[in-house]
Amino acid sequence: MKEYYLKKADENLPKIEMENISVPNEAKALNSGDSFVLDLGNHYVGYLSFVLGFADYHPDAPTRLAIKFCESRYELERDFSSYKGTLCSSWLQEQIVDVDTVGVYKMPRRYAARYIKVTVLASPKNVILSDFTFSAVTSAKKERLAPLEISDPELQSIDRVAVNTLKNCMHRVFEDGPKRDRRLWIGDLRLEALADYYTYDQVDLVRRCLYLFAAEGECKDGFMRGFVYENPEFFSGNWTLIDYALLFVVSLCDYYLHTGDRETFFDIYPIAKKQMETAAEATDQNGIISTKKGGGAFIDWCEELEKKTSLHGVYLYTLDTLYKTLQLLDHDDASVYLSRYCEAREAALRHLYNKENGNLENAYDNYKTSVHSAVWMILGGVLEGDEAFSILKNAIDDEKSAKPVTPYMNHYLVEAMIKLGKKDIAAEHIKSFWGAMVREGADTFYEVFVPGKPDVSPYGDRLINSMCHAWSCTPSYFIRKYFACGENGEENGKI
Amino acid sequence: MKEYYLKKADENLPKIEMENISVPNEAKALNSGDSFVLDLGNHYVGYLSFVLGFADYHPDAPTRLAIKFCESRYELERDFSSYKGTLCSSWLQEQIVDVDTVGVYKMPRRYAARYIKVTVLASPKNVILSDFTFSAVTSAKKERLAPLEISDPELQSIDRVAVNTLKNCMHRVFEDGPKRDRRLWIGDLRLEALADYYTYDQVDLVRRCLYLFAAEGECKDGFMRGFVYENPEFFSGNWTLIDYALLFVVSLCDYYLHTGDRETFFDIYPIAKKQMETAAEATDQNGIISTKKGGGAFIDWCEELEKKTSLHGVYLYTLDTLYKTLQLLDHDDASVYLSRYCEAREAALRHLYNKENGNLENAYDNYKTSVHSAVWMILGGVLEGDEAFSILKNAIDDEKSAKPVTPYMNHYLVEAMIKLGKKDIAAEHIKSFWGAMVREGADTFYEVFVPGKPDVSPYGDRLINSMCHAWSCTPSYFIRKYFACGENGEENGKI
Repeated sequence: MKEYYLKKADENLPKIEMENISVPNEAKALNSGDSFVLDLGNHYVGYLSFVLGFADYHPDAPTRLAIKFCESRYELERDFSSYKGTLCSSWLQEQIVDVDTVGVYKMPRRYAARYIKVTVLASPKNVILSDFTFSAVTSAKKERLAPLEISDPELQSIDRVAVNTLKNCMHRVFEDGPKRDRRLWIGDLRLEALADYYTYDQVDLVRRCLYLFAAEGECKDGFMRGFVYENPEFFSGNWTLIDYALLFVVSLCDYYLHTGDRETFFDIYPIAKKQMETAAEATDQNGIISTKKGGGAFIDWCEELEKKTSLHGVYLYTLDTLYKTLQLLDHDDASVYLSRYCEAREAALRHLYNKENGNLENAYDNYKTSVHSAVWMILGGVLEGDEAFSILKNAIDDEKSAKPVTPYMNHYLVEAMIKLGKKDIAAEHIKSFWGAMVREGADTFYEVFVPGKPDVSPYGDRLINSMCHAWSCTPSYFIRKYFACGENGEENGKI
Repeated sequence: MKEYYLKKADENLPKIEMENISVPNEAKALNSGDSFVLDLGNHYVGYLSFVLGFADYHPDAPTRLAIKFCESRYELERDFSSYKGTLCSSWLQEQIVDVDTVGVYKMPRRYAARYIKVTVLASPKNVILSDFTFSAVTSAKKERLAPLEISDPELQSIDRVAVNTLKNCMHRVFEDGPKRDRRLWIGDLRLEALADYYTYDQVDLVRRCLYLFAAEGECKDGFMRGFVYENPEFFSGNWTLIDYALLFVVSLCDYYLHTGDRETFFDIYPIAKKQMETAAEATDQNGIISTKKGGGAFIDWCEELEKKTSLHGVYLYTLDTLYKTLQLLDHDDASVYLSRYCEAREAALRHLYNKENGNLENAYDNYKTSVHSAVWMILGGVLEGDEAFSILKNAIDDEKSAKPVTPYMNHYLVEAMIKLGKKDIAAEHIKSFWGAMVREGADTFYEVFVPGKPDVSPYGDRLINSMCHAWSCTPSYFIRKYFACGENGEENGKI
């Protein structure tokens, strides 16, 4: 089956669209030591080319340039050699190139950038660099982008940046970040697919990604890995994250609910089922899913976070989505998952919900609370109505509660608010969280964002943070599904 | 006419031959900081490729490598950042590359190397680099190389290295050095063409180069420039060297004498004539050619050298070659150049030859002597017989006389010895000078070589010296023309 899944993934390989952006620069004579900055005017992903010319005499040696690609002004101003983070410094986009001949020079690697700094390291006298062109690439088809009718200008701006984020992460797969990682992760895929359904609606790309993970799930016992490589050929990632394995199942259901494509659903369903069987086996004596067996949990980049309640919430959310999808499909397994859902919900109420305090302080999480626990207990259907909202609000307001760090976790926070019927509060949160990035001039939404704390990084140095990150693109999903006028609105019955 | 000449040059663009050299390496797991050296086993010019693999987990970041290409062990051992020479440091062949995906990685630039040092600057854990292949390129056709029959093993070794030097300088043009300059210079062309006639005999490439200089001569008043660029398009160089402009005329004559190709000769003859007219105008009131008008002189890389006597010798040598060639062609101009030759020879005897001392101490050269003056007065036909040899020998033995620095000048020294009938002494000089490079392990002959003085460099740092330099390849010409047995020997009537 692995070969079959990879063949299906190949069949859905998208065409890459290219748009040439001319970047104005002052084409003056340059010498060793000179430097200048190009501003693309927006964040793009692609390939740089330029023309090497000369003012007086034809250059008699190669022109050696350092070319630094920056998603943000912060990267532009930092010296990359001062990087102290935990991730490999090879992600930092600075290239030293030697241009041997006059004429057009095309840099072979792909970069993600708004700003480009060019420094002449060593050159003959009076070389001229001109005709800078950034060939922006994406598999998003511009003409497919659904129009957005919305009166609120703030949400409109947020949508614009979210769409740009999605577009710049759409390539051979839904990448997590075009500057760093450039990989297909389940957590990102799920959110990108949701945003895609309401914007470009390129379901082929979602289908391709689902097949790639199906290939991954096929060749592993237990949970599938959280990410895969596919270029130039398929390789498994090396992390297993239980929440991601479960969200693969949700992604498959989302895909069916959006497209009605039964064939693909049932092609991949055995892999979804394997995740669910592995999850059932991973529950402990109390019926709570445990990270001790078969993998860790991601939930959020948040050091102090206790994750057990959240993970069980993800399990419930998955069971809930799956049994409902199978019911729509009249499939016998629906009842199996409904019954597991009821059991797991009972277990949550018994072991994760603190009856005495009426909150989520529990032994599994060392009596520590978090917004994450509240969100996932709401999305898992354990907490409902006013009580749910009150627990969520307390977690948000309580200094001691862990708070979301990533836009990824903020997505589920908004989803929980909407589930509780708090659309206005959800819109306010979108404006406060994603809107803050827009207000500070973001062209795309970041991997990590904690308002007022620009130095936060899961990797020990914000220089390596991705400033265009797939899991941040879902405001478009919320805005277009819940807040837009016209055919994009909630009434249209799409997922 | 410029366009016509360039069209003819294009018609003679050679096919590039490629030979893939597999370079063994230990394919072990590597991490940041590791490094290793590859030995190609010989000097080659070409393109490196390798395979990026992994030991445990698929790499999760690009692999950043510093790849240093070295023609010699000296380059291998020197840190390039310590370079202090006058030429642009961009010639130093060290490239930092980021390898994004596993599989074959092809470096796009061409390098000249015997040794390659690979250092892992930043990488994920346990990457494996393997299948190093050096795709060696040249326009020399292996199957055309004439066999050499010679009993002397020393001359045989010298010929092997000379042929390798020539081969590694033959590309789109006869390059001067494949590591540095990579340009078509007249001085190098003349010597490469001579060596070519006795080895690969690829006259198309010589013809192409002659047409390129014809295009250069066409678009300039006075003397042509000493070098041209032709890739991706034709540009003039920015130095005029009178000796080189004259040697262009000699090269054209050589070409006709070797090939009998009248059509090409007369295509280009107007450009040769222009050099001769310019030279005639550049003579002073004594009839001695002067560097004051229209250009400098190269003669040799030799700081203390006084060049006027040598330059006049080059003029005489050119006049002599040209009138004899035109006589063979029954061309009316022959008599013009014969008469100029006689006048210029008279002028030399009167002003450059010191009748009192019987040597070449003269006012033009501030009464300084050099091997160069003696060589060129012999080649120009001013000095002859025993007296000539005695003056040459004195210049060689006299500590105060300037000595040849480059293999280029050593070529003309050998030519002068042979002209005086001293074949044995010429062979001894080849063995002593070029042989010394072979004895120290050279795969190719160097740009600059002064036995016992390895640090000599015209550029302030030997790191930038070219270790495979076209103008050093002529031992093959001498050995095959004057010392070989069989059909290559002198008797065959070739030039």
